[in-house]
Amino acid sequence: MAKDIETTIKNGGVTTPKGFLANGAACGIKQSGKKDLAILYSQVPAAAACAFTTNVFAAAPVRLSKAHLRARFHQAIIVNSGNANCANGSLGDSDAKAMAHAAAKGLALSDRNVLVASTGIIGRRLPIAKIGMALSALLDGLSSSGGRLFSEAILTTDNVRKEASVRVKLGASTVTIGGAAKGVGMIYPDLKVASRHATMLCFITTDADIEKASLNSALGEAVDESFNMISVDGDMSTNDSVFLLANGLAGNRKITGGGNDFGRFKAALKYLTKELAKKIVSDGEGATKLIEVVVKGARSHNDAKSIARKVTTSNLLKACVYGEDPNWGRVAASCGSSGAAFVPARTDMYFGGIKVLSNGAGISRIDRAALRGVFKKKNIYIKIDLKSGHAGATAWTCDLSEEYVRINSAYST
Amino acid sequence: MAKDIETTIKNGGVTTPKGFLANGAACGIKQSGKKDLAILYSQVPAAAACAFTTNVFAAAPVRLSKAHLRARFHQAIIVNSGNANCANGSLGDSDAKAMAHAAAKGLALSDRNVLVASTGIIGRRLPIAKIGMALSALLDGLSSSGGRLFSEAILTTDNVRKEASVRVKLGASTVTIGGAAKGVGMIYPDLKVASRHATMLCFITTDADIEKASLNSALGEAVDESFNMISVDGDMSTNDSVFLLANGLAGNRKITGGGNDFGRFKAALKYLTKELAKKIVSDGEGATKLIEVVVKGARSHNDAKSIARKVTTSNLLKACVYGEDPNWGRVAASCGSSGAAFVPARTDMYFGGIKVLSNGAGISRIDRAALRGVFKKKNIYIKIDLKSGHAGATAWTCDLSEEYVRINSAYST
Repeated sequence: MAKDIETTIKNGGVTTPKGFLANGAACGIKQSGKKDLAILYSQVPAAAACAFTTNVFAAAPVRLSKAHLRARFHQAIIVNSGNANCANGSLGDSDAKAMAHAAAKGLALSDRNVLVASTGIIGRRLPIAKIGMALSALLDGLSSSGGRLFSEAILTTDNVRKEASVRVKLGASTVTIGGAAKGVGMIYPDLKVASRHATMLCFITTDADIEKASLNSALGEAVDESFNMISVDGDMSTNDSVFLLANGLAGNRKITGGGNDFGRFKAALKYLTKELAKKIVSDGEGATKLIEVVVKGARSHNDAKSIARKVTTSNLLKACVYGEDPNWGRVAASCGSSGAAFVPARTDMYFGGIKVLSNGAGISRIDRAALRGVFKKKNIYIKIDLKSGHAGATAWTCDLSEEYVRINSAYST
Repeated sequence: MAKDIETTIKNGGVTTPKGFLANGAACGIKQSGKKDLAILYSQVPAAAACAFTTNVFAAAPVRLSKAHLRARFHQAIIVNSGNANCANGSLGDSDAKAMAHAAAKGLALSDRNVLVASTGIIGRRLPIAKIGMALSALLDGLSSSGGRLFSEAILTTDNVRKEASVRVKLGASTVTIGGAAKGVGMIYPDLKVASRHATMLCFITTDADIEKASLNSALGEAVDESFNMISVDGDMSTNDSVFLLANGLAGNRKITGGGNDFGRFKAALKYLTKELAKKIVSDGEGATKLIEVVVKGARSHNDAKSIARKVTTSNLLKACVYGEDPNWGRVAASCGSSGAAFVPARTDMYFGGIKVLSNGAGISRIDRAALRGVFKKKNIYIKIDLKSGHAGATAWTCDLSEEYVRINSAYST
């Protein structure tokens, strides 16, 4: 984190910025009886920027939220977990609409000022009646300390809540950004903002005063460097969505793009989204380690990104990291199959601080004990230097364990 | 198999066609003492067609074989297992050359008439002296019944030998095609013929008389429909290679492209390569089931191929097949993230013969017991009908088991 720009707030989440209320409860979608319905509300109209999955099989709530984004402002997001409301045909669409309508009615808003998100199993009808019955108590319980309940109710097979919050000074004002995310599997987002489209879900709130176009642009950059650079399993979801609401209550001079304040806001937002993205990967299904892959010296950002993403989706690498076996040949093979253009004979690679590949050839006299030590840590750093240009990219993944297979060999039943 | 075109030959392999000799032995590359050096020899000069990996980090033997392919004919292939001779810098190149040269000398051939292949760990120096010392006994033992020894010596972590052989009548002549393959991990080939470039290795022999251009074209089509449609782990190797030698000893009227004989030869070759490709997937690391994914009704072959390959690389699908859990939502999500253009609302899906998705919506009244029965079988058939065109593609993969993780969490050590 750039210490001079932001300070993190311990235990902060979506209700840390001014004017945001939230709540979460169990409405009976999950058989386990765990919380599965959540609502986020801004006390004043907010500018919204969203990024959604580019999956052609996008779920009904994704399609509805995209349509509702045409409205000038937004004030609430209703979210259920335990059911993705995906591949349910036209019934799915009408259920998503009914969900938005019920929340809008309870909050005295227009339907289109409400955004919707769902996560869970694909292809089962959403039990909309259960949502309807639980809603009025949920709205009654909206509170400025409800962020934690919200962050619990959006989870599916997650082990831990994923929240973060940062503060950034803009002139005399202090702007706060808070967020909550979920997701441990089917994590390989490729989100596009607004006109853009990732099941990770992320809800970000800020009291910054910022015009919508700038908000979109900031979210686009932040998503590209965070959620769009993580993988748990290489499987892209039908429901991935990132929501960002900015309600202006910080009283800062309105951010209108360009300039120092926009830069500082973006830096804070990027820090927050990277923190949440890493929390998702760290809690990935069966994960025991976090792997960070840094590519530098690439001729283009796209080349760097292709390599970083290809390496982070390698089952072979992920399995050997789980086994604490520093098999760098697997990383070299992944680089070479990424579609990126580079010169193997100029490529260096480092595991932790230890050089394993120099100009495309393995280092013959390597301290194997030290190399094993790098892989015994909880966080594994891999750096690939193509020494051919000035572009770079960073991606994150987790290791692949037997537990991953156990979790995913029996999910729908 | 098209019964009228080919007959399969039980226990056939690379020495089943006329004029091919082979041998395999242990030279000490593998610490286990298992066979690790193999040679294939045609008693007369043969036309060669090869397909190699497109991995930028292609191994030294791949680069050398590509260079040697410029020769007009070829007569031998020398192969080691246990070491990939990849990422060894210029020493790797000189070791590959030394390997070809030693075989050429022993067989009284020019170096360029010998092709080379290696498979095993990346980044360790090839013990070329061990190969040299074992070579003369290996050559002395070349025999027309050596196909089995050859097929054993090319294996790494494979559990079973992978051989196949077919016969096809061309006019009054009978042409035989035999093959041996290896590979259980790092299997996601994308091979290109001649000018083309997969660590699966495959060696195909035929006594057909066929001109080189036709041989190339036949191999290109066959590889595209077989090896380029399989995945064990989605990781493309640096060493994947397919070699096809045609020595003309069957005495058929020379195949010069087009025509009925060329069609029949291609059909036989395609049958053989698909059989070998399925053997690789069936023996995939930790595999317990073979999954066949058929896409039809696509607007283009590329769309069909993108979907079939994306579905077969889904860890989530592979894990639920292992768990015998018919979670079709994961297949829908994969289709949607393939990059192919299709209309979800027109898409049907079948597991075995059971329709699970109709026009993009899940079938609500489904016989769950019957559906589970489909997933209890050893071979799982998934059909996706996009109902938008006439193009199709078929891809194969295996399931993802805890055993896969165990195998790959400790390999190099």
